Amino acid sequence: MKKLSLLTLAVLATSAFADEGQWQPHQLADLQAEFTRVGIELPAKQVAQLDQYPLNAVVGLGYCSASFVSPQGLVVTNHHCAYGAIQNNSTAQKNLITEGFLAKNFEQELPAGPQERLYITEQVTDVTDNVIGTLSADLTGKARYDAIENNRKQLIGECESDANYRCVVRSFHHGMEYFMIKQLMIKDVRLVYAPSEAIGNYGGDIDNYEYPRHTGDFSFVRAYVNKEGKPAEYSKDNVPYQPKSWLKVSGSGVKQGDGIILAGYPGSTSRYRLTDEIVYANDVAYPLEVETYNLFIDTVERATENNPEAAVKYASRVKSTNNRLKKRLGLLDGFKVTDIAAIKAEQEAQLLAWMKADISRAEYLASYDQLKSLLLKMQGTQSQDLLYSYAQNSDLLGAASRLYRLAKESEKPNAARKIGYQERDLKMIESGLKRTQTKFDSDVDAKVWQAFLALYLTQSEQSRISAFDAALGLNPSMDEAALAALIKPYYADTALNTIDGRLAWMGKSVAEFEQSNDPFIKLAVALYQTNLKREEESDELSGLLAQARPQFMKSIIAYNREQGRPVYPDANGTLRVTYGSVDGYPAADGVYKTPFTSVRGLIAKNTNTVPFNAPANLVAAYNNKQYGDFYYQTLDATPEQGWLCSLVGCEQPKVSEFNSIPVNFLSSADTTGGNSGSPVMNGRGELVGLNFDSTYESITKDWYFNAKITRAIHVDIRYILWLMSEVDNAENLLAEMDVVK
Amino acid sequence: MKKLSLLTLAVLATSAFADEGQWQPHQLADLQAEFTRVGIELPAKQVAQLDQYPLNAVVGLGYCSASFVSPQGLVVTNHHCAYGAIQNNSTAQKNLITEGFLAKNFEQELPAGPQERLYITEQVTDVTDNVIGTLSADLTGKARYDAIENNRKQLIGECESDANYRCVVRSFHHGMEYFMIKQLMIKDVRLVYAPSEAIGNYGGDIDNYEYPRHTGDFSFVRAYVNKEGKPAEYSKDNVPYQPKSWLKVSGSGVKQGDGIILAGYPGSTSRYRLTDEIVYANDVAYPLEVETYNLFIDTVERATENNPEAAVKYASRVKSTNNRLKKRLGLLDGFKVTDIAAIKAEQEAQLLAWMKADISRAEYLASYDQLKSLLLKMQGTQSQDLLYSYAQNSDLLGAASRLYRLAKESEKPNAARKIGYQERDLKMIESGLKRTQTKFDSDVDAKVWQAFLALYLTQSEQSRISAFDAALGLNPSMDEAALAALIKPYYADTALNTIDGRLAWMGKSVAEFEQSNDPFIKLAVALYQTNLKREEESDELSGLLAQARPQFMKSIIAYNREQGRPVYPDANGTLRVTYGSVDGYPAADGVYKTPFTSVRGLIAKNTNTVPFNAPANLVAAYNNKQYGDFYYQTLDATPEQGWLCSLVGCEQPKVSEFNSIPVNFLSSADTTGGNSGSPVMNGRGELVGLNFDSTYESITKDWYFNAKITRAIHVDIRYILWLMSEVDNAENLLAEMDVVK
Repeated sequence: MKKLSLLTLAVLATSAFADEGQWQPHQLADLQAEFTRVGIELPAKQVAQLDQYPLNAVVGLGYCSASFVSPQGLVVTNHHCAYGAIQNNSTAQKNLITEGFLAKNFEQELPAGPQERLYITEQVTDVTDNVIGTLSADLTGKARYDAIENNRKQLIGECESDANYRCVVRSFHHGMEYFMIKQLMIKDVRLVYAPSEAIGNYGGDIDNYEYPRHTGDFSFVRAYVNKEGKPAEYSKDNVPYQPKSWLKVSGSGVKQGDGIILAGYPGSTSRYRLTDEIVYANDVAYPLEVETYNLFIDTVERATENNPEAAVKYASRVKSTNNRLKKRLGLLDGFKVTDIAAIKAEQEAQLLAWMKADISRAEYLASYDQLKSLLLKMQGTQSQDLLYSYAQNSDLLGAASRLYRLAKESEKPNAARKIGYQERDLKMIESGLKRTQTKFDSDVDAKVWQAFLALYLTQSEQSRISAFDAALGLNPSMDEAALAALIKPYYADTALNTIDGRLAWMGKSVAEFEQSNDPFIKLAVALYQTNLKREEESDELSGLLAQARPQFMKSIIAYNREQGRPVYPDANGTLRVTYGSVDGYPAADGVYKTPFTSVRGLIAKNTNTVPFNAPANLVAAYNNKQYGDFYYQTLDATPEQGWLCSLVGCEQPKVSEFNSIPVNFLSSADTTGGNSGSPVMNGRGELVGLNFDSTYESITKDWYFNAKITRAIHVDIRYILWLMSEVDNAENLLAEMDVVK
Repeated sequence: MKKLSLLTLAVLATSAFADEGQWQPHQLADLQAEFTRVGIELPAKQVAQLDQYPLNAVVGLGYCSASFVSPQGLVVTNHHCAYGAIQNNSTAQKNLITEGFLAKNFEQELPAGPQERLYITEQVTDVTDNVIGTLSADLTGKARYDAIENNRKQLIGECESDANYRCVVRSFHHGMEYFMIKQLMIKDVRLVYAPSEAIGNYGGDIDNYEYPRHTGDFSFVRAYVNKEGKPAEYSKDNVPYQPKSWLKVSGSGVKQGDGIILAGYPGSTSRYRLTDEIVYANDVAYPLEVETYNLFIDTVERATENNPEAAVKYASRVKSTNNRLKKRLGLLDGFKVTDIAAIKAEQEAQLLAWMKADISRAEYLASYDQLKSLLLKMQGTQSQDLLYSYAQNSDLLGAASRLYRLAKESEKPNAARKIGYQERDLKMIESGLKRTQTKFDSDVDAKVWQAFLALYLTQSEQSRISAFDAALGLNPSMDEAALAALIKPYYADTALNTIDGRLAWMGKSVAEFEQSNDPFIKLAVALYQTNLKREEESDELSGLLAQARPQFMKSIIAYNREQGRPVYPDANGTLRVTYGSVDGYPAADGVYKTPFTSVRGLIAKNTNTVPFNAPANLVAAYNNKQYGDFYYQTLDATPEQGWLCSLVGCEQPKVSEFNSIPVNFLSSADTTGGNSGSPVMNGRGELVGLNFDSTYESITKDWYFNAKITRAIHVDIRYILWLMSEVDNAENLLAEMDVVK
């Protein structure tokens, strides 16, 4: 038996293969057999190089992924990733969200906004030795946690001496390894082309996490630098950035079974957790989170029912809470369909048996036991921690606490300050305090706070925080009216409900805070010691986990190494590469989801009502058969071709009836949040699509990659090119791109 | 090109094949090539014979289809077809609907009810000459209609001189041909075995017309006769009927691509309608019907909101109205997805071109023009006819009108009476009058009547019936309160709201009716002449159509004959045979429905709440791997097998993950209402399933058979056998059946 496979604990011996794995680029060098298996022609060693095609064309947006597609710094990403830039440039008179936008030349391109950044990963350095190499094993808990933080801060400080770069030190394998990521930071990003929301967000929240899908989730931005070619804040005089590489764009796309590569910045996964953790998430954590999300949404909806202006301010928070809610429900549903805890338990038993099989592995066993007991401890307070955190869920209390903490940290030398409160962070804090205003309404804030105070009060006295109860004067017999009366003066007497009122506190001294009569400032001061102590306890636990988890990871890696399998680290927001095949999946008994959707299907789904309101010119172009070069003749082969026709000799196979322009397609690539906008490339590294979502059945992949059903959803490049050439007249952009057949 | 095909106007030249066709048995003799194509081993000539296997094992229930499966007269049909029998034998103490029922021996078998009948078609005779052969072409309109009715009645009367038989004369091709159907009528039917509703109606109304589906829609009854082997009413002394044939039962079922035969009694189709008729149905008739169904359901729901006893009485009517509503909505949705009117228009244009191509076809052209003008006339009053009919939608007014009509008809000699009011019909009328009581509530009846009077009054004066307005004292300015006040005395003063009150009027003279003070009787008498005149006008139109439609059908048949294609008649409640393949279908862009569902899927769908509440012993038997012989190893092959594995060499194809016991399966057989319970047979004529429903996407098949998506839903025989052997312990029945591997 040829061992094609990977991968980690997550792979059972009976699985012949899986497309699981969010690989660090350097790991790819060992995966040539995998590349060959799925049909990727680019050598694995080439894709492993940050400074070679195609990885040097892949960029990060901080929260999303993207890629260069022209020598003039043109970048393609998702519509939902460029949403902020589109919103920033919209006015009541000219709403680019609903109308869409296309710059016909450089001059027409619009500044994306002062916050928008493009990050190009230029260097990834193993700094494990620098971060933990010198730490004695006896250094534990908070002391260890602080030492690690200090080492990280020092490395970052040195690296960022060149102001053109942003540096981060990330933990891999949960603290087993550390890498420093050095990224060129482009500060002038401009909006170039965004289709109307009716294309870019077709299906809206209704279709979020759903498939079949018909979303044109793409937009184009451009990187600008100063005349010397260096990153610079926006200036009229800036010029387009000339990237080292830009992706070739495939004009012919992919078909079912084709191998694909996908690169980007996945945020976070939990693939190496213990069974206990899954059981706890399913039984306790997720149900509680679902409760809090529902409480937030219901409270805001009731509070804004007759206040449309406030409703608009909270719309994005409600939307993202709904998104998190759907994700949690998907996780809980997925756990019902596949007993992931049982699968993990079996894998864990195998690993344990292996640990026990040789005395030399005693250390692993000890780390496993220690990890289990630490997790038990953490779980013991997790619910009350969450509810206490929600009990402080007022934007104004949050601002007061952040400002007072800033004053406290500012008493220390810069290097000694908590990450997030250093000189480099001040700008971020300030813009956060400003931004609150566009998302905030006093009445709604009060009602949300009140609702979560009430939820907090449902706990027993032991689970509540006595200092918090005392500071607010809370007691569990308080009903709705009593709570409303309790918090009313906070909102009546505070000055924090304006931008100026908040910014005025930046740079003030600790003494000034302590003398303030502002009720939220007073509350923040009163809670400070309690919260700091809780943070220290949490850091202590983090420090202990930062020892135990890497030990456990080492055992997993050693176990897999024996079987010739490399192990990829959990996602942590750093550049990763995954590969897979274009493929459908069995979604339920009797239902197979086929891997392509079409413009024909989009039109069939159209109701002319948001979010199913495709623009009339799109529908007309299709109905007039203006297909351009993007009509796909063998889209969406169905089983009939194989079965029935072989039996009876179809003169005209049913498959031909599926011909259309592809809109979205599925692949087995391993993705998660942060991979939005990731380029999807064919075996030659040509752009064939953009990643933008996963199916509902895939949501559990953050815990366990089920190769049978896990599918990512991509925008097909042919849909993008068709819209550009036949619907939106973006010939100027097509001209600068390298479209190949 | 080998001409495999069939089939009627509905087939375009580009279609190589289709499984369309509800064939009269005798037509099958010409379809051997089709049988060979789909893989049926039984000779077509054999299946064409009523007195040979398998057709002599197929029986009708009047409203459903069924088949003999043992030499002791054991019959299998749908659970929903045996529902009346199950209900009749249920009490508050022992509810067989929820508990299910299994007789362990003949003695325990329960009388299905005095209405239940089994019909075995023994003879089908072409009586076209007898019915219309002697009629002059000049005999038109109502005169022709009456002459045809008289000829039919006479044929029936002669045939039914043997009281063991029920005879009907049915029109085929809309009056082009007439056949007399002579059926042995078994009058003692007993309930043998019904699974609990949680199996037999799994999914309930939610899953009605839906797929994936997991419904165990089967039950067993038994035919009993007297000791001489002749049909007889129920008697303790009766013995099991010994049928000439009984179906062999396949223990191994079918797989995707297998050919199947399906036989039964489909009720009604409209495959040869004109484009105009489809357009009218879509634009006018169906939307109006949807409105009336919604009005009925809403009115009953509001009227029974606080009256659970009344709610129970109306439950079955609300259910069947909901079913009709869903069917209409499915038709309207289907018309949106496939422009059937456009397809028909193209076919009609071809036919017209053919008519015009040769002067000898002038008569066809004339009949086409005449048909179009008659249809236009009919459509002109169709909406007002419907609303007027609903304006009389009180059960008590209905009873009064029927009773007065009976008195009127009874003044004539029996043979001259309207069909439905002859001696042979009295029993049916009486039991109808009795049965009303279990489905009727005075208050609800009043509210329904009032709602439809209000709808009727929304019409202009020209569309209303002046005699009706006058008899009731209606005027369009009446509001809800005024209508309520108007009809209140009807309910206060009538004696028809009891069984005795209604039965008392059977056999009374016309004079007695005319002297009555019962408000409903008075209203019925007042409306009689008006309604009779309207009926005569309708008969006149029917008579004209009874000439025009056959002429048009002749042109269709002649046109198809030129191309070597036989034409099957629209369904009309007579025995038909269809064939097809086990097959999935593309349900929507990105969604392919695979042809099998499984017990695994059933359990995954289970919520333990009605209608998804599979019995615990079923779930336990499956979870304990008590699969019996019915575990299907290659169920539900998915495209991966063909695609991905050929590319990468799957060691363990994903297809194997679908292994389970099959529950339901799809085929391309051509079915409609009345085919419920039809045996589905493999190519050797062995029972492999029972037909029970169609997919939502198939609903438009009554107008147009779209071979790509039209699928019937069947219960898999392996599910039935598994339940019998592993869950419900029905070994006694298995022992008398002929289960073959």
